[in-house]
Amino acid sequence: MIMFKTSLRTIGVMTSGGDAPGMNPAIRAVVRTALANGIRVIGIEDGYEGMLNGRFREMGARDVGGILQRGGTILRTARSMEFKTPEGQRKAIRQLSSAGIDAVVIIGGDGSLTGGMKLQEQGVPVIGIPGSIDNDIYGTDMCVGVDTALNTIVDAIDKLRDTASSHNRAFFVETMGRNCGYLAVQAGIICGAEMAIIPEYETPFKEVAEAVEDAYKRGKSHCIIVVAEGAKLNANELAAKLQEMNVGFDTRVTVLGHVQRGGKPTAFDRFLATRFGVKAIEFLLSGQTGVMTALTGRDITPIPLATVVNNRRTLSEEYIKMARILAR
Amino acid sequence: MIMFKTSLRTIGVMTSGGDAPGMNPAIRAVVRTALANGIRVIGIEDGYEGMLNGRFREMGARDVGGILQRGGTILRTARSMEFKTPEGQRKAIRQLSSAGIDAVVIIGGDGSLTGGMKLQEQGVPVIGIPGSIDNDIYGTDMCVGVDTALNTIVDAIDKLRDTASSHNRAFFVETMGRNCGYLAVQAGIICGAEMAIIPEYETPFKEVAEAVEDAYKRGKSHCIIVVAEGAKLNANELAAKLQEMNVGFDTRVTVLGHVQRGGKPTAFDRFLATRFGVKAIEFLLSGQTGVMTALTGRDITPIPLATVVNNRRTLSEEYIKMARILAR
Amino acid sequence: MIMFKTSLRTIGVMTSGGDAPGMNPAIRAVVRTALANGIRVIGIEDGYEGMLNGRFREMGARDVGGILQRGGTILRTARSMEFKTPEGQRKAIRQLSSAGIDAVVIIGGDGSLTGGMKLQEQGVPVIGIPGSIDNDIYGTDMCVGVDTALNTIVDAIDKLRDTASSHNRAFFVETMGRNCGYLAVQAGIICGAEMAIIPEYETPFKEVAEAVEDAYKRGKSHCIIVVAEGAKLNANELAAKLQEMNVGFDTRVTVLGHVQRGGKPTAFDRFLATRFGVKAIEFLLSGQTGVMTALTGRDITPIPLATVVNNRRTLSEEYIKMARILAR
Amino acid sequence: MIMFKTSLRTIGVMTSGGDAPGMNPAIRAVVRTALANGIRVIGIEDGYEGMLNGRFREMGARDVGGILQRGGTILRTARSMEFKTPEGQRKAIRQLSSAGIDAVVIIGGDGSLTGGMKLQEQGVPVIGIPGSIDNDIYGTDMCVGVDTALNTIVDAIDKLRDTASSHNRAFFVETMGRNCGYLAVQAGIICGAEMAIIPEYETPFKEVAEAVEDAYKRGKSHCIIVVAEGAKLNANELAAKLQEMNVGFDTRVTVLGHVQRGGKPTAFDRFLATRFGVKAIEFLLSGQTGVMTALTGRDITPIPLATVVNNRRTLSEEYIKMARILAR
Repeated sequence: MIMFKTSLRTIGVMTSGGDAPGMNPAIRAVVRTALANGIRVIGIEDGYEGMLNGRFREMGARDVGGILQRGGTILRTARSMEFKTPEGQRKAIRQLSSAGIDAVVIIGGDGSLTGGMKLQEQGVPVIGIPGSIDNDIYGTDMCVGVDTALNTIVDAIDKLRDTASSHNRAFFVETMGRNCGYLAVQAGIICGAEMAIIPEYETPFKEVAEAVEDAYKRGKSHCIIVVAEGAKLNANELAAKLQEMNVGFDTRVTVLGHVQRGGKPTAFDRFLATRFGVKAIEFLLSGQTGVMTALTGRDITPIPLATVVNNRRTLSEEYIKMARILAR
Repeated sequence: MIMFKTSLRTIGVMTSGGDAPGMNPAIRAVVRTALANGIRVIGIEDGYEGMLNGRFREMGARDVGGILQRGGTILRTARSMEFKTPEGQRKAIRQLSSAGIDAVVIIGGDGSLTGGMKLQEQGVPVIGIPGSIDNDIYGTDMCVGVDTALNTIVDAIDKLRDTASSHNRAFFVETMGRNCGYLAVQAGIICGAEMAIIPEYETPFKEVAEAVEDAYKRGKSHCIIVVAEGAKLNANELAAKLQEMNVGFDTRVTVLGHVQRGGKPTAFDRFLATRFGVKAIEFLLSGQTGVMTALTGRDITPIPLATVVNNRRTLSEEYIKMARILAR
Repeated sequence: MIMFKTSLRTIGVMTSGGDAPGMNPAIRAVVRTALANGIRVIGIEDGYEGMLNGRFREMGARDVGGILQRGGTILRTARSMEFKTPEGQRKAIRQLSSAGIDAVVIIGGDGSLTGGMKLQEQGVPVIGIPGSIDNDIYGTDMCVGVDTALNTIVDAIDKLRDTASSHNRAFFVETMGRNCGYLAVQAGIICGAEMAIIPEYETPFKEVAEAVEDAYKRGKSHCIIVVAEGAKLNANELAAKLQEMNVGFDTRVTVLGHVQRGGKPTAFDRFLATRFGVKAIEFLLSGQTGVMTALTGRDITPIPLATVVNNRRTLSEEYIKMARILAR
Repeated sequence: MIMFKTSLRTIGVMTSGGDAPGMNPAIRAVVRTALANGIRVIGIEDGYEGMLNGRFREMGARDVGGILQRGGTILRTARSMEFKTPEGQRKAIRQLSSAGIDAVVIIGGDGSLTGGMKLQEQGVPVIGIPGSIDNDIYGTDMCVGVDTALNTIVDAIDKLRDTASSHNRAFFVETMGRNCGYLAVQAGIICGAEMAIIPEYETPFKEVAEAVEDAYKRGKSHCIIVVAEGAKLNANELAAKLQEMNVGFDTRVTVLGHVQRGGKPTAFDRFLATRFGVKAIEFLLSGQTGVMTALTGRDITPIPLATVVNNRRTLSEEYIKMARILAR
């Protein structure tokens, strides 16, 4: 994992995989910290696809001015099939080499970090920064983008509650998160939902029906069930089944969708992304590569990419229980 | 339409049909203006269903304190099949009469105002206030709730654009509006969408494909198509067909859904709702009933409920053209 | 006022005076509508100062991409003393002439439109677009920026109410508006303030004290008084005097300040600015110059700049009364 | 610090000192967790003043419904001089005793927790929950309310930047924080300010002037300086001095004021407050009292109130340096 680079002169920075709010502040911190240390920075556009095709551009301090508050990523992102092949990787390394890029900072999710590990194994020093609204990356408490996505979900559910209460309705709200229930559980707790249905646990339909009925009997004017997109029971199916049962509430479904990826980054995400970006350069300068910047408690620490990629993050049981008690 | 009521002592106020942000400020204005004129106010809960079942409660000035900024409606709303029958209407009138209610202010959409006309025809003085996010009510420039819904849509599309630009994507965004394309056209103009697809005009799929291709060729990093829920071509179908054509952009769909109904009312909706509420009482006091408060230019004028109910609002062609030119 | 320009080939567009949210959508609409009509567009930077110094740049369709949602103005704005002199004006006209600019669209407030009238008088065709958060321009129901500013004020006062209620406090909130009480009166109505103090009417301190005491006696947990910046009684002085009287509430002051000028434009402001921009080009093409685009009811009409500049907008008494009744 | 209470049947909960967004979610979590454990909950209104005067009310599960998203505190808060005296404290203890309150959960800042320590010393089991937007409480990484306040500041500065850029202006923005520079430093980093001026370090005026001049020379269109309210150099004085120097930018001042205390709590604050509330009851049940719930890394741990009250939180030098590098 550790290799020492005596003469770091030029680095590349790129975003990859699904975009997440806060990627821009991370780019900004990488660029400005590198420049402050006398390192040149090349922006790699469109993720690994751009790396393969040499879509490189020099980044100065002004190029990252005014991007702190912008969602998405100014370097854009894409998925690349070609990079997954050994030939693709060799081609990418040739591109980096001919552009004089000595090391790469990769901001992205699980797949992107796996790509980074491949590069590192073949001799290109890499630092990963976890960026993903799903919070499904092992080794870090939080990824860049999670806090903004959660606040977007909270705003949406607060709005749905207005209309749910006015109509005595039960809403099934589908959140993003792929195979990870993190967003759904957190949203459940902080929005006061009756229940969160997640991929990590199988919830029998009976339990869902009981929770809704129970809310109705306790005199609640609405009922909110958060459903992670990866859950076995799909929001639309759940609503249809429940509607048939005639539990008192009328049911409705809302799939929050891609709005969860957008929006200007929150204070938390700007700060986390900035710390990650600064540390990425510090790790590079101290010769620590093949690692990801991770939030562990209150510190930013380096975690080997291999550890990140070969482990699976699990959800805290504590929070799942907490959600149940508080919904009462 | 005009009848004179010498002894107006007690009025009822209710919300009906789909809820809309701004209904609460309208209730507040009705209650406080009535009280200031020495009139008692009874809140009718759950729309016509509550009217049929006598769900009445006295409203004082403090009961409408702190509701200006709340979405939904504190009186709740519901749909009632029974009220549509002549027996239902007679039952409702008996309930009003036995509660001593001399006149009713009804805040709601087309169906709710039709109900109001029925009551008026049978001797109950009624004032309607147009409340609907769809802006599909004849006779008024704007309904309560439209401005808030538009701002919610704008926020969502601004977020989608972040992620669309980062991924070179075309997004199909479905807005509410039932059979009316108002929200979709407005959103198209103010969000800079490439196209708005609405129920009022049939858009051949070929045109959609050309607009998307054209945006791609002009070097745009994203493409947004707003699709009204009532349009012939459904957002999901459109996206699927376009994806097959391989026009350069990857396609995605987002159905904004019920979040469009919620949220704290904007400045515009609070003010419009307040003016409507004040005028409703003024019309009652001057003996003008069987009318709806309508925004016509800068004034609030009374429009006979029969005129409202028997005409259909059409969209301005001018705006549809405007949307095309500005997307370039 | 009317002159006919047979050969309109190139126009200039600029923003001037205090910035207002929505200026960017106005610029975008001017540019794209002009281009669609085969007219070249030159952006004039920094208002009249830039006009004097030839800070001109060609504007293409892509130059106004992605600015709909941005506050401020991409052309920047400035105040110029030199332009107020006849020599200054002649110099400006020479600059326009040597850049081949046949007509100018000026987006700004009272002072900026006065400048526009001077140019028109000296033979330069001018169209004005009213942009000012103060809504103090004669002849138009609304200026670009007012709706956004009001929503910013509403958000701020909603937040202040949270803390005011928690502490049993009276807040004096100073809003912008120079000599015009529009923002203060509107904010008073839509935020449910106890009182709005404005430049147009002299409010004796006694009345203020009574309103606050009255709110306390009626059991309100807080009291909000909106004070226009141009009012005789200043927010700080009012609070200090009231604190001495010991009326029950503790008093605090908040001066909202320049945040009122910023923020992404609301749906309303984007639409108004867009309509103004489109109409500005239509007026030019039809030979109507020396006019301002004005919102009159639901239409956009041309009002002679001389009429705009030589009249003073007054506030509606109706709304002032309305504010009183609703605060109860 | 540790005492064992075999028979905990009734607890009191109160908010005290300056209000902070997130106090309501904390109250909700305390109430619902207590009820789930068979403990009765009494709400104490208006902080120590209410405790002294017996303003107690029973809290059921429904009493804390719908408050997650509300700013301020439903129990209100106040400052009490009387409670600071030994007689006052004895009176308070008598009130608690006669209401059958066995332990108290106090949500508030430094002063409020000092009061809690006094009660604990005299035999009343107390748990403190840190609530303060200033983040000036020793022992916890974050207090309830800080994240929401930061996001409010970020929104405001993003707006000010719009107008600053449009006018080539330098803005001095005063943030809250009493004697603590936390909010100012964080805001400086995440808003990309040129400088943050804080109570903890003396910044010579010369340095401020140089930073502003430097920004001007580097071609920035605006300059933002964040000034903590407790800083030696006041925002107004700074601006006045700088204006005289004529550095290129025009200067303006904005005092953000009490809006920083309001607003609906963010996702982070809702979650932190909820965890604190749940843990407060867990600590009580396990007999750990005289402690504050503290966020230490990713855990919530009990810190003795005496430790909290007798130590002073310091700012991280690392962040102050980070702010400098990133502003470039």
